[in-house]
Amino acid sequence: MAELSRESGVAVPTVKFYLREGLLAPGERTGPNQARYGEAHVRRLRLIRALIEIGGMSIATVRDVLAEVDEPDSSLHHVLGVVQRGLVAPSAPRPAAEREWALARIGEVVGERGWRMDPDGPIVDLLVGTLCTLRELGNTAVVDRLGDYADAAAGVAETDLATLDASAAPESVVESAVVSMVVSETMFNALRLLAQKQASARRFPG
Amino acid sequence: MAELSRESGVAVPTVKFYLREGLLAPGERTGPNQARYGEAHVRRLRLIRALIEIGGMSIATVRDVLAEVDEPDSSLHHVLGVVQRGLVAPSAPRPAAEREWALARIGEVVGERGWRMDPDGPIVDLLVGTLCTLRELGNTAVVDRLGDYADAAAGVAETDLATLDASAAPESVVESAVVSMVVSETMFNALRLLAQKQASARRFPG
Repeated sequence: MAELSRESGVAVPTVKFYLREGLLAPGERTGPNQARYGEAHVRRLRLIRALIEIGGMSIATVRDVLAEVDEPDSSLHHVLGVVQRGLVAPSAPRPAAEREWALARIGEVVGERGWRMDPDGPIVDLLVGTLCTLRELGNTAVVDRLGDYADAAAGVAETDLATLDASAAPESVVESAVVSMVVSETMFNALRLLAQKQASARRFPG
Repeated sequence: MAELSRESGVAVPTVKFYLREGLLAPGERTGPNQARYGEAHVRRLRLIRALIEIGGMSIATVRDVLAEVDEPDSSLHHVLGVVQRGLVAPSAPRPAAEREWALARIGEVVGERGWRMDPDGPIVDLLVGTLCTLRELGNTAVVDRLGDYADAAAGVAETDLATLDASAAPESVVESAVVSMVVSETMFNALRLLAQKQASARRFPG
């Protein structure tokens, strides 16, 4: 157990908690107070850590995602949906008139690009919430550029999907996809902040 | 107070908490149990709500950001730094060898683009953490594409900065910039998830 903790970078009480919560399979019992853990345990712990620390997921969501990873017949497209739901926190509902305005704006941008969307899904809810907040605060510049952001997002999504194709061992394709999606969201946000600094230093010298 | 809560969408006990914490200026006292609040209070509450609910900021960070918004001499470039620090949670430290590997990879990508970075800053720390997690889990495809992601991030950052330029009233430029940065991070993540779904449905039909 101590070795497992050291290898995975997860503290012993946290490992015990994951065992109790069923996120981690029990080790092979070798004595009254001893169990053997293998490479699969280390890997699983690292995955759980990434989902929680980087993806900000709850234990319940991690359980759903792991069930998908362990499902032999799960498709990449399906696992993507499960991870996406895990990454999106539920949004506070908005008054009908505000929601309608935001949905119209989103529908315009999505329609121009031939995208499909589920107007009642959590991603669209999140978009509605952000657009309503921007309007409330009188910030129309970002709303006006929604199409530019959508085009940039399409480019990033192509790279995302290309990294999934390149995933190594077939038995770990789904696991690898989960890692890509969760970690690369945070990675991209960090790169964007870095890029903003460059653009800002150029535009506002001194 | 009840009206202020209704207008801003922030519950009365939360408004009282913000008053106690000094995030919101007290209203003009008009009686022993009554105070008058104006449009500025509603606006401030909406801003606080956006920083906390969408930006996921702590009360302490919101306080720092608001101090910057209220500072008459604050520059856009400076406020950008304050908001960025607020958006980035501190990362767990990594062993020196892993950190060095990640810094070399980041330095390569950043150097090719002529960017400047602070290798000890929180953004680079966050990038180091994400790259180390990807390597640990054997996911090299995303690390290999770091340059593609950096180029896409540069494009998004240009749009970000363009929305700052277009901010309306000069007295609210800084406030408007804060809103843009915080809300558009979440908005872009949502668009990316939506775009992933389109790309995934195309690549993995059925």
